[in-house]
Amino acid sequence: MKNLVGIIMGSDSDLKVMQDAAKTLEELGVSYEITVCSAHRTPDEAHKFAATAASRGLKVIIASAGGAAHLAGAMAANTTLPVIGVPINWKLDGLDALLSTMQMPPGVPVATVGIDNAKNAALLAAQILATSDENLMKKMEDYKKKMAEGVIAKAAKLQELGYKEYLESK
Amino acid sequence: MKNLVGIIMGSDSDLKVMQDAAKTLEELGVSYEITVCSAHRTPDEAHKFAATAASRGLKVIIASAGGAAHLAGAMAANTTLPVIGVPINWKLDGLDALLSTMQMPPGVPVATVGIDNAKNAALLAAQILATSDENLMKKMEDYKKKMAEGVIAKAAKLQELGYKEYLESK
Amino acid sequence: MKNLVGIIMGSDSDLKVMQDAAKTLEELGVSYEITVCSAHRTPDEAHKFAATAASRGLKVIIASAGGAAHLAGAMAANTTLPVIGVPINWKLDGLDALLSTMQMPPGVPVATVGIDNAKNAALLAAQILATSDENLMKKMEDYKKKMAEGVIAKAAKLQELGYKEYLESK
Amino acid sequence: MKNLVGIIMGSDSDLKVMQDAAKTLEELGVSYEITVCSAHRTPDEAHKFAATAASRGLKVIIASAGGAAHLAGAMAANTTLPVIGVPINWKLDGLDALLSTMQMPPGVPVATVGIDNAKNAALLAAQILATSDENLMKKMEDYKKKMAEGVIAKAAKLQELGYKEYLESK
Amino acid sequence: MKNLVGIIMGSDSDLKVMQDAAKTLEELGVSYEITVCSAHRTPDEAHKFAATAASRGLKVIIASAGGAAHLAGAMAANTTLPVIGVPINWKLDGLDALLSTMQMPPGVPVATVGIDNAKNAALLAAQILATSDENLMKKMEDYKKKMAEGVIAKAAKLQELGYKEYLESK
Amino acid sequence: MKNLVGIIMGSDSDLKVMQDAAKTLEELGVSYEITVCSAHRTPDEAHKFAATAASRGLKVIIASAGGAAHLAGAMAANTTLPVIGVPINWKLDGLDALLSTMQMPPGVPVATVGIDNAKNAALLAAQILATSDENLMKKMEDYKKKMAEGVIAKAAKLQELGYKEYLESK
Amino acid sequence: MKNLVGIIMGSDSDLKVMQDAAKTLEELGVSYEITVCSAHRTPDEAHKFAATAASRGLKVIIASAGGAAHLAGAMAANTTLPVIGVPINWKLDGLDALLSTMQMPPGVPVATVGIDNAKNAALLAAQILATSDENLMKKMEDYKKKMAEGVIAKAAKLQELGYKEYLESK
Amino acid sequence: MKNLVGIIMGSDSDLKVMQDAAKTLEELGVSYEITVCSAHRTPDEAHKFAATAASRGLKVIIASAGGAAHLAGAMAANTTLPVIGVPINWKLDGLDALLSTMQMPPGVPVATVGIDNAKNAALLAAQILATSDENLMKKMEDYKKKMAEGVIAKAAKLQELGYKEYLESK
Repeated sequence: MKNLVGIIMGSDSDLKVMQDAAKTLEELGVSYEITVCSAHRTPDEAHKFAATAASRGLKVIIASAGGAAHLAGAMAANTTLPVIGVPINWKLDGLDALLSTMQMPPGVPVATVGIDNAKNAALLAAQILATSDENLMKKMEDYKKKMAEGVIAKAAKLQELGYKEYLESK
Repeated sequence: MKNLVGIIMGSDSDLKVMQDAAKTLEELGVSYEITVCSAHRTPDEAHKFAATAASRGLKVIIASAGGAAHLAGAMAANTTLPVIGVPINWKLDGLDALLSTMQMPPGVPVATVGIDNAKNAALLAAQILATSDENLMKKMEDYKKKMAEGVIAKAAKLQELGYKEYLESK
Repeated sequence: MKNLVGIIMGSDSDLKVMQDAAKTLEELGVSYEITVCSAHRTPDEAHKFAATAASRGLKVIIASAGGAAHLAGAMAANTTLPVIGVPINWKLDGLDALLSTMQMPPGVPVATVGIDNAKNAALLAAQILATSDENLMKKMEDYKKKMAEGVIAKAAKLQELGYKEYLESK
Repeated sequence: MKNLVGIIMGSDSDLKVMQDAAKTLEELGVSYEITVCSAHRTPDEAHKFAATAASRGLKVIIASAGGAAHLAGAMAANTTLPVIGVPINWKLDGLDALLSTMQMPPGVPVATVGIDNAKNAALLAAQILATSDENLMKKMEDYKKKMAEGVIAKAAKLQELGYKEYLESK
Repeated sequence: MKNLVGIIMGSDSDLKVMQDAAKTLEELGVSYEITVCSAHRTPDEAHKFAATAASRGLKVIIASAGGAAHLAGAMAANTTLPVIGVPINWKLDGLDALLSTMQMPPGVPVATVGIDNAKNAALLAAQILATSDENLMKKMEDYKKKMAEGVIAKAAKLQELGYKEYLESK
Repeated sequence: MKNLVGIIMGSDSDLKVMQDAAKTLEELGVSYEITVCSAHRTPDEAHKFAATAASRGLKVIIASAGGAAHLAGAMAANTTLPVIGVPINWKLDGLDALLSTMQMPPGVPVATVGIDNAKNAALLAAQILATSDENLMKKMEDYKKKMAEGVIAKAAKLQELGYKEYLESK
Repeated sequence: MKNLVGIIMGSDSDLKVMQDAAKTLEELGVSYEITVCSAHRTPDEAHKFAATAASRGLKVIIASAGGAAHLAGAMAANTTLPVIGVPINWKLDGLDALLSTMQMPPGVPVATVGIDNAKNAALLAAQILATSDENLMKKMEDYKKKMAEGVIAKAAKLQELGYKEYLESK
Repeated sequence: MKNLVGIIMGSDSDLKVMQDAAKTLEELGVSYEITVCSAHRTPDEAHKFAATAASRGLKVIIASAGGAAHLAGAMAANTTLPVIGVPINWKLDGLDALLSTMQMPPGVPVATVGIDNAKNAALLAAQILATSDENLMKKMEDYKKKMAEGVIAKAAKLQELGYKEYLESK
C-alpha cells in the first residue's frame, strides 16, 4: 500500500515533537512516510520531495520547521497537495516559526496548526483523507467521542475526589 | 448538486474580505454556501451549522472571525470535517484573531491561513477536495501554472521597461 | 445551599493554577462548584453548563483556558450571567490565551483577569456577589484591610532588619 | 434614584469611545454617572471617586484609560466594588493599555474587557447588577435574543441577495 | 543627614532584584531609604510616601513593580520630584511592567530604566543628584572610568589567553 | 546665561514631535539648546556633543531617535550627566525605538519616557533641575496644580453639558 | 560589463520600496539587474536565479519579500554568494517578514537589513563589493562624508532659524 | 598575515555564544581577531576599533550585543567596511537586541543575522571575503555540500531505523 501522508521535518531535532504526528497517524491506521529535509540546507531534496509527492501517492504533506520556517512553504510552492505546517518552538517561543509558516502570499496556502502541535497536524491530515474515506471518517468520529469521554471522566473524578485529592492523585 | 464547501463568517463585516474566498471557489467551479453566524452571538446556529455540515454534504468548512476569533474552533469542536480558519484583522493588526484561531488544543485542529487571506482559504479547500477529485486536481495545477506565468510575465515586462517606466505604467 | 460560583476549567492541567480560585472562595465562605469541561473537546457539556447555570442557582462563572482559550467566551455566549475569564499560560507566555479571552466582540463581554491569576478571578466573583450581599461586602473590606496590613508589616520588618538580613530571613 | 454605575475616564479624549458605554446603559435603563478623572493628573479626585463610590450608592465602576492605563487599578485599590477596565487605544494599538489594565497583582482584580470595547463594559456592568435584579436579568436575556436575531436576519438577507448584492446594499 | 533617595518596591519579592540599587547607592555614598509599598494593596501609604517625599528631604524616588506596574506612576502623580521606574519581570518577560511604567500620559513623566535594571536606577538617581553636587559628579566620573577599565582589562585578558582558555577560566 | 538642557535629535524629522520639548522648557523658563546630530551618520559630532556637555554648562540631555535608536545611549556613553531618551515612532509603532533606548546595559542608564512623549522629557528635565532650584520646583508644583485644575474643569463641563453636548462642543 | 548585484523581488508590489536600492546602486556606479520572482509562485525561476547567479557574474544578491518572506532564504539555500534580505511591510508592520528573513538556521545566513530599508540593502551590497574594489571603497567613504555633511548642514540651519522657523521652512 | 575579520563583543558574557563564530572561521581558514569592547562602557575603544579597522587590514566586522544592542551600529557609524550584527538573547528572548541591531537608519546598514546565530555571522563574513577569493568560495561550496550530505545522512538513518529507534539512538 502506498503511503498517504508525508511527514517532513526541517531538522532531526524536530523529531522529539513530531513523533506525536507519527504516533497519531499509526493510531488511526493511516500510512505515512517520515523524513528529514531542510528547505535551506537540502533545497534540491526538498524540491524533489514536493514535486514527486503526488506521483508517489501522497495525498497530504505535513512539514515542520523552526525559526525562519520555510519548509512548509517550500512544499506548497512545488505541489498542489494540501500542505500542513507545524511551527516549531526554536527561538522567540515559536513566534518566528508561526509567522514564517502562516503568512503565505495569496495563491500558495499552508494549513498552519499551533506551535509544536504535531498531533493536530496528524488529525488534520486524517480529516482531509476522511473527506473521501468513510471508514476513516468513522474513526475520526470515534476519536472525537473518546476524547470527549476522557474529559467527562476527568470531570467525574474531580467531582468525586474534590480538587485537593485530585491534584494529589495526579 | 450539493455544496461542498461552507463559508461561515463571524460578522457580515468580514464579507468585504471573505468575498475573495467565494470568488476563488467560483473560478475553480467548486460549489459552496456562504452565511453569517457568530460563535458568541448565535452559538446555537453555529453549533447546528457544524453538527449538520457533514450530513448536508459539506466536505470542508471555511470560518472567518476577528478579535477573540472562536468561530473556526467552534466549528472544529462540532464536526470532524476539516475546518479552515481565516483570522480577520479587526484590532491589533489581526494578531489576536491569528492566535485565537491557530492555538487550538491537541485533538481539535484548525487549518489556519494568513491574516485576511480569504483566497488561500478557498485554495486550500479546493486542494483538500482535489485529493479525491482528479479533475479538480488538474484545475489546481493549471491555477498554479497560470500564477507562475503571471509572475514571469511581470518579470519580462520589468526587463523590457526598466523599473522607472514599470512603476509609471502601474 | 446552592452554589453561587461555577469554576470551569478547559483542562485538568489548569487545576494546579485554578486551585487558588477554589481556596480563595473557601476563605471567603462563598459556595462553589468546580469542574473540567472543554469548549473544543466537550462542546455539548460546555453548552449545557452555561445554559443551565442560572437555573442551577449560579450567579457568576469563572472559566479558565490556555492557548486558543475559548471556554470563557463559550460560557458568555450561552448565559447572561457575568463570566470571568482566566487566561492560562500554556504557550507564548499566555499571550494567546489572554487575547483569545479578552478580545470578545461587542455584545458578549468576558471579564478578563491577569494571566494565571486565579485568585483575582475568585475575588472578582466575590465582589460581584457582594454587590447584593452586605455580609460578603464586609468580608471583602476585611480582606482588603488584612492585605494592606500584610504589606505594612513587611515594610516594618524591612525597616527593622535592613534589606540584607531581610533577604536572608526569607 | 441613586446611580448604580460610575463611568470614569482618564481623559476626555476617551469620551468618543466611552459614549457607547453610556448609551448602552441608557438602553438598558441602568442609571449611571460619567466623569473625567486622571489617576496621574488628579490622583486625589481619583482616590475620592473610588473611596466614596460605595457610600454614594454605586455598585459597579467602569474605568477607561490609554497608555500606562492606571485608572482602573487606582479604582480597584480604593474600593471593593467590582471595577471594569476598558483599555483605550492611544499608542501601540492599545497593547500598553491592555497590559496595564489587566495584569493586576493578586488581591486587586480588574475585570478587563477588550480594547476600546465600551459596549462590553456596559453590558458586563449590567450583568453584574442583574445578579440581584431579576428585571434587569430579563432585559439582558432580551438583549441577547435581539442580538442573535440581528445576526440571523443578516444571514437570511445574505442568502436572499447573494454576497455581491449584499455588499452593494451596505 | 537626611536620605536623598527613596527606594520603594511594589512587593518584597522585588527585593532580590532591587538590592542592587541599594548596593550601588551605598558604593557611591548616597544616603537612601528603602521600603515596600503597593500602589494597589496600600494606596494610602503609597500616596503618603510620595506626598511627603520632598518635605522629608528626598530628592529622587526609585519605584519598582511588576505586571500592571503602577507604583512609579502613583509616585509621579503625587510629587514633583523626579521618579525613576524599574519594570520587574513577573510575567511576559517584563513587557507588561515596561509598558505600564513607561507609557505615562503627557504631564506626568516617569524616568524608566531597563527591565530588572536596578543598578541603572541607582546610577541615574546619583547622576540626578550630581547635577548639583560636584563631589558626587566626580564619583560618577570615576565609576565610569573604572567600568571602562574593567572592560579593557577583559579585552586584554582575552588577547592573552585566547577565547578557549578565557572561557575555561571563567 | 548658559543653557541647562541640551535637546539633540537623531533626525530633523523628529522636530515635529520634539518641538513640544522646546515649548515646554520655554513655558517653564528653562534655557536650552536644540540641535540635530545622528549617532550613526555624525558619530563624531554626537561624541563631541556629549563629551563637552558638562563643560558647556548643560545639566541634562534630552535625546530622541527612531528605529535602532542609539542616540540617547551614545550620549550616556560619553557623559555622566543624566540623559533622557525619547523613542520616536518611525516603524513598528515605535517598539524598536523604545527597546533600543531603554534596554541599556547595567552601568549606563538612560531615563526613557514614553513613545513620542517629548513633553514628558522636558518636564523630567525640569524636575531634575528643580532638585537644586527651589524656584523651579515651585513652578513644577504650579504646573501640576494647573494640570489638575484643567482636568477638574473638564469634569465640571461634562457634568454640566452631559456627554452628548460635550462631544459636540469639542 | 557583467552585473555585480542582482535585485530580486518577491512581488512587483515591492518595487515601490525597492526602487531605492536600484537608485542607490546607480548613484554609486554599481551595475545591477532587477527582476520579480517568487519563492512560492515561481520556485523554479527562483532556484535558477540563485543557482546560476555566481556563474552569471553576480557577486551579491538582494532579495525582498513580505509576509512569510522566504525569497532571501531561497536564494541563500542555492548559492554561496552573500544574500541581503529586505523585509517588506505587508502585514503586522513587517514583523512577519522580518522574522521570516532573519531567523535562518545555522549554516545558511541571510544578511537582513531593516524593514523596507532598500537603501541600506544597496549600500551593504556596495560595501561588500568594496572589500575588493578600492575605487568603490573611496566612493563609500565619500558617501558617508556627504551624509554627515548633510546632517551638519541641517544642524547649522536649525541654529540659524530656530526650531519654529525651521519647521515652517520644511 | 593580517586578520581579515574582526569579532567584537559588547560583553565577555557573549563569548559563550560567539565562540561559534571563531570556530567556524578557523574551520574555513579565515584569519580573525576577537575582542571585547562596549559601545556604552568603552565608547572610545569602540570608536577606535571601527575607525582603524580598514587600515589594520580588516575586511569585515562581526559585532555582537544584547539588550539595547548598539555595538554593531557604532561600528557601522565609523567604518565603511561591511558590519555583521549578532543580536544576543539577554532579555525578552533577544527581541530588543534584534530590533536595536537591525532597524538602522537609511545610510548606515548593519547586516543582521538571527538571534545568537554566531555561526551564520562567520559564514556570512566568509561569503563576503569569498566574493574576491576563489579559493575561499570553493571552501564555502564544499561547506554547503557537506552540510547537505549531513542532512541526507540523517534522513537515510531515519529511514533505516524508524523514528522510535532513531530517537533512542540520539
